Amino acid sequence: MGVVGGVGPQATAYFLDMVVRLTHAERDQDHLDMVVLNHARIPDRTAFILGASTENPGPVMAQDARRLERFGADFLVLPCNTAHHFTDEIAAAVDVPLVNIVEETVAEARRRVGDLRTLGVLATTGTARAEVYQRAAGAVGVDCVLPDEVDQAEVMRIIYEQVKAGLPADVAAFRGVVDRLRERGAQVVVLGCTELSVVAADHDLLAADRTLVDSLDVLARRTIERAGHRVRD
Amino acid sequence: MGVVGGVGPQATAYFLDMVVRLTHAERDQDHLDMVVLNHARIPDRTAFILGASTENPGPVMAQDARRLERFGADFLVLPCNTAHHFTDEIAAAVDVPLVNIVEETVAEARRRVGDLRTLGVLATTGTARAEVYQRAAGAVGVDCVLPDEVDQAEVMRIIYEQVKAGLPADVAAFRGVVDRLRERGAQVVVLGCTELSVVAADHDLLAADRTLVDSLDVLARRTIERAGHRVRD
Repeated sequence: MGVVGGVGPQATAYFLDMVVRLTHAERDQDHLDMVVLNHARIPDRTAFILGASTENPGPVMAQDARRLERFGADFLVLPCNTAHHFTDEIAAAVDVPLVNIVEETVAEARRRVGDLRTLGVLATTGTARAEVYQRAAGAVGVDCVLPDEVDQAEVMRIIYEQVKAGLPADVAAFRGVVDRLRERGAQVVVLGCTELSVVAADHDLLAADRTLVDSLDVLARRTIERAGHRVRD
Repeated sequence: MGVVGGVGPQATAYFLDMVVRLTHAERDQDHLDMVVLNHARIPDRTAFILGASTENPGPVMAQDARRLERFGADFLVLPCNTAHHFTDEIAAAVDVPLVNIVEETVAEARRRVGDLRTLGVLATTGTARAEVYQRAAGAVGVDCVLPDEVDQAEVMRIIYEQVKAGLPADVAAFRGVVDRLRERGAQVVVLGCTELSVVAADHDLLAADRTLVDSLDVLARRTIERAGHRVRD
């Protein structure tokens, strides 16, 4: 299987690590064969979606998908929620399937809470404006609540000025944003940006709280299963 | 650049993570473009070297190197010390350079101690028997000390029954083996198996002790520099 990665590089590294750690394996040869393209120079996704940049990352990721298909990947994953704005363009470029991180994450959120009506979404402003989660959730009758303007600026600071810059994340601020989504009715809160998955993994936020669903964790589990391997108990 | 990986999968994931974390970067686009082949099904290296298996991993890794070269990698690294027994075969298969983890690690050990005469080596029994470190160190006038039979069995338990099996490592046993190499004159102790690098990273053993040199950490730093990027201070 192939990983259309580099968006961002830290999230791609975490994704590979998650797949390895979550695979039921007793020796090297029990693991998945993977090819991971950590293509760091892909133009910024949010900047293009918001019109702050004219460099379109879509054709670059479509070409990366084709290169991975030629390398022999039998299915592809794209461990980035914002990049899923470009999913149709990437999927059209290849004959092998592209597992959709957003659809899989919404499906997992619905498994966590019996009658899911309201989903909280932490994501980049690009993902929010492109309505990536709103459309996937709306298609199955679920409403989304997103942070207000002040909280969204906080989320972007954590993603861009902290995680992508290789600096420690402000976990207290992160928890505050999550709490305020819950006050507004979110039954489940999705970490819909793989940089936030890095924060969750570094601070072990997921194990204790089943109403926090991490998109990167979900994608890792679905990748293992789709490759015909078993997820570690 | 390309990573001939999967030997083992956890070490490959750590290597990618190390390169990302150690790169001086303020945004995604400051990182290295990398293609990582996590080829888990490569036959066991130590089993072949010791004659316990007739499945030769050498031609498989040589083919992987060719595939990565065709993909566009301008240089290759192999984040596995035992696999370096097969370096000549792999290097001969491609036109691009293959950075040698063992030579780079010995060079780093010599930078750590002014007049290095005795180097302790923790590695798989395959790496030890193939004299991978003994030859690289001998070429620059440095002697190696390796664990005795009982301690070597302990090292192999940590590598195979703990790290490769996804279980917690016995850090106290690990420290005991290191201490006994020092008692026998080792001025610097090399972690010459990337599974031991996983133990060192998980338990933060390197920062406090400059006479412990981790081969995976060394390879990550040389990879960043060779790709024309800067190592984070």
